[in-house]
Amino acid sequence: MPNSSNLEAVLERLDHGRDEALKRLFSFIAIESISTDPAFKDNCLCAAELASSYLKDAGFSSEVAPTTGHPMVLGKYTSKQNPNAPHILFYGHYDVQPVDPIEEWTRPPFQAEIVEDPLNGPVIHGRGSSDDKGQLLTFLEAARAWFEVTGDIPINITVLLEGEEECGSPSLDGFLAERGQDVKADFALICDTLQWDKDTPAITSMLRGLAGFEISVEGPNRDLHSGMYGGPAHNPLRALSQAISALYDDENRVMVPGFYDGVSEPDTEMSAQWKSQGFDETKFLNDIGLKKAHGETGYQLLEQLWCRPTVEINGLWGGYIGPGQKTVIPSKAHAKLTCRLVAGQNPVTIIQSLQDFLKAQFDEDVKVTFSEADGAPAVAFDLSKPQMSVARSALEDEFEKQPVMLGCGGSIPIVEAFMQRLEMDCLLVGYGLNDDCIHAPDEKYNLSSFQKGTRSFARMIDGFSSM
Amino acid sequence: MPNSSNLEAVLERLDHGRDEALKRLFSFIAIESISTDPAFKDNCLCAAELASSYLKDAGFSSEVAPTTGHPMVLGKYTSKQNPNAPHILFYGHYDVQPVDPIEEWTRPPFQAEIVEDPLNGPVIHGRGSSDDKGQLLTFLEAARAWFEVTGDIPINITVLLEGEEECGSPSLDGFLAERGQDVKADFALICDTLQWDKDTPAITSMLRGLAGFEISVEGPNRDLHSGMYGGPAHNPLRALSQAISALYDDENRVMVPGFYDGVSEPDTEMSAQWKSQGFDETKFLNDIGLKKAHGETGYQLLEQLWCRPTVEINGLWGGYIGPGQKTVIPSKAHAKLTCRLVAGQNPVTIIQSLQDFLKAQFDEDVKVTFSEADGAPAVAFDLSKPQMSVARSALEDEFEKQPVMLGCGGSIPIVEAFMQRLEMDCLLVGYGLNDDCIHAPDEKYNLSSFQKGTRSFARMIDGFSSM
Repeated sequence: MPNSSNLEAVLERLDHGRDEALKRLFSFIAIESISTDPAFKDNCLCAAELASSYLKDAGFSSEVAPTTGHPMVLGKYTSKQNPNAPHILFYGHYDVQPVDPIEEWTRPPFQAEIVEDPLNGPVIHGRGSSDDKGQLLTFLEAARAWFEVTGDIPINITVLLEGEEECGSPSLDGFLAERGQDVKADFALICDTLQWDKDTPAITSMLRGLAGFEISVEGPNRDLHSGMYGGPAHNPLRALSQAISALYDDENRVMVPGFYDGVSEPDTEMSAQWKSQGFDETKFLNDIGLKKAHGETGYQLLEQLWCRPTVEINGLWGGYIGPGQKTVIPSKAHAKLTCRLVAGQNPVTIIQSLQDFLKAQFDEDVKVTFSEADGAPAVAFDLSKPQMSVARSALEDEFEKQPVMLGCGGSIPIVEAFMQRLEMDCLLVGYGLNDDCIHAPDEKYNLSSFQKGTRSFARMIDGFSSM
Repeated sequence: MPNSSNLEAVLERLDHGRDEALKRLFSFIAIESISTDPAFKDNCLCAAELASSYLKDAGFSSEVAPTTGHPMVLGKYTSKQNPNAPHILFYGHYDVQPVDPIEEWTRPPFQAEIVEDPLNGPVIHGRGSSDDKGQLLTFLEAARAWFEVTGDIPINITVLLEGEEECGSPSLDGFLAERGQDVKADFALICDTLQWDKDTPAITSMLRGLAGFEISVEGPNRDLHSGMYGGPAHNPLRALSQAISALYDDENRVMVPGFYDGVSEPDTEMSAQWKSQGFDETKFLNDIGLKKAHGETGYQLLEQLWCRPTVEINGLWGGYIGPGQKTVIPSKAHAKLTCRLVAGQNPVTIIQSLQDFLKAQFDEDVKVTFSEADGAPAVAFDLSKPQMSVARSALEDEFEKQPVMLGCGGSIPIVEAFMQRLEMDCLLVGYGLNDDCIHAPDEKYNLSSFQKGTRSFARMIDGFSSM
């Protein structure tokens, strides 16, 4: 894809203005915007104000919009020369995780600095450097450079910066219900995800969904003494264990009829890409204390994690669980189950099939009840959409490597909110790395992530303008 | 078996002295000897003193022997005319259960009285009327009648009355360690068990044993997010459920190799007796909310309960068990298991086989650990022993029905103590009924149980004298 001459100037500006951009990031990091702790309420407001001022510098109109909790930053830019250009919503969050255990930080968490890292080269050290202050600034700096170099930005942009992402987004739903029309754009660009590795960019192209409920089974009508009843009495812990066992075959395939209906085999191109990138399955497994992958036989680990649905037992309990022995045959047993879903699976259908299957495992002497179930479908972004092509080209041009199409084993709440509430497509591009220590001591963001991230977004702005 | 002429006089005395005997029982019941509640410490001592005085009335030497808790009553009678006669130990307990919920009693628990019961005819109402003041007095009254009528008792008797049976017998072991030789006799006669029904006597002839431990399994080395790891990660709740399921086949037989080694098929005579007595399986099951018996296929319910070993899951837990959903793959899962054992099974061997079998169910990615295990073998009394024949004849003579040979699905601690600590055989004869409401409001003891029980023991004393 040919780049405009403006783009070359913008990229040059980003390179020359790097130190100024880093100063802005360091100032942003310096504000202790820990959203989960009420003691930092004012800091959160300050961080919102600073981000808002950054937007104004880049030519945006911007407001710090109150919510029931920490405010949202809502910025708007309408292209002067290109008012009919595509309209994108950029999402990031200005709040950060707490810093405990503070004694495990080797440097002060809020005094950002460039540190030499043996594996990654120069990195930006500090809380929020990656998640998500550094990531969101990659986009803001790209927009600023366009504005400063050309006096305009060639696309229409809404920016939404949340202040409660790290504490469960309690105000998001209400805000979107009220201000949704101010937020809605042609698609959302979200910068809160990972590269494949430090040299290889990535687009997160699919997220698994979720469906879950609790099952309770009752055998005898009361707890029984195993001496007085053991033998003839039905034990619901045994019955529930058997029902759970029946969910899987020896190759870890889920045995619920219809469970795989509509599920496609993993995209061969993506699978080949993952394989060719040399993902280290052994390291992934050893890190969690395992020697082999326990998903469906015949699939590589990343396919098991990103492309295949699961049924997990998240909790199981019944009978006496205190210290010592109690010879009880319990009346009841319980389990919490969740499924990770993939594209093609309808959560409502899956829940029904799973409950039907479980019910059928018990005989007439077991009463089975289910809690209210809930679920959300998986998301698989359409790779043929023009914004996807723009992002792929921009990343490839910048990194000189094709971006890897990543999956994500879990859902991302903001994606769900945008897709469900605003019926808006999403594009997930981020420059974080697995070793960024987000949510942990010594968080960092590779300097190359910041630089290449900023330049990649500058390229995308150019690409989106001619979609 | 021909009865001596003395016996006829003793039985007549019991009939004519019934009201006096009941008065003694009512006085005994009136003492609130609730052993588990320290507020009733003095009452327990009073009950011991009263029982001791009853023994002295019957010609015994008797002491109220202190222990670390409530005292033991230890009585001794040496036959004047028959000093070489068999020596029996009679065991009962003078302590009773608390009376809560007191509001559910229809009459005062400690003011014993005769009440007309629609199913049972006249019954003695009051706490301890059955368990165990009424039961133990059946023997003491029989001994008293022998002493009063003949000026002697034709056998040697030690009486041990415990005051802590209802609170776990904390002082028993220490007492037996110290005074075991004062207690030991040719065999022990224990009166704390049941008749078959109100018209049919019984001897409890076998008790199941117990063996148990806790199993803990660890899959991943920490709790994992099911979005980040679900699929490839091993779930220990699933693994443990599968191991538990593998314990049983479709006919509820335990699949552990060697589990049934040494286990005999149920005694056909006993099984036939149970069948012919018309035990109501449906009622037994409906009472606990079940429609069918869940023990091994091919065995009647009482065989499953008394003659067949089991593996029960008494507790099972792991993962998130609070309200709501948590998409965790837990690191660990736990279960508590106990086996009810029957004659021929060695607890140590069973524990080892069971642990070996369980271990073999897990793959290399699961670490398995077991808690310290403990167990006690089953007891099957030798039906060919002379005291057994005496008891059977005495009961048959009195009730004009053959006594049913009962099993007991659980162990009885005092039997274990006598057999293990004092290597003493036991004979379990009692006159309680399932509907006596022991440990519950409105405890009662059938007047016929008291009368026929007393007369049966008078007959046994006669029978033991010529063994």
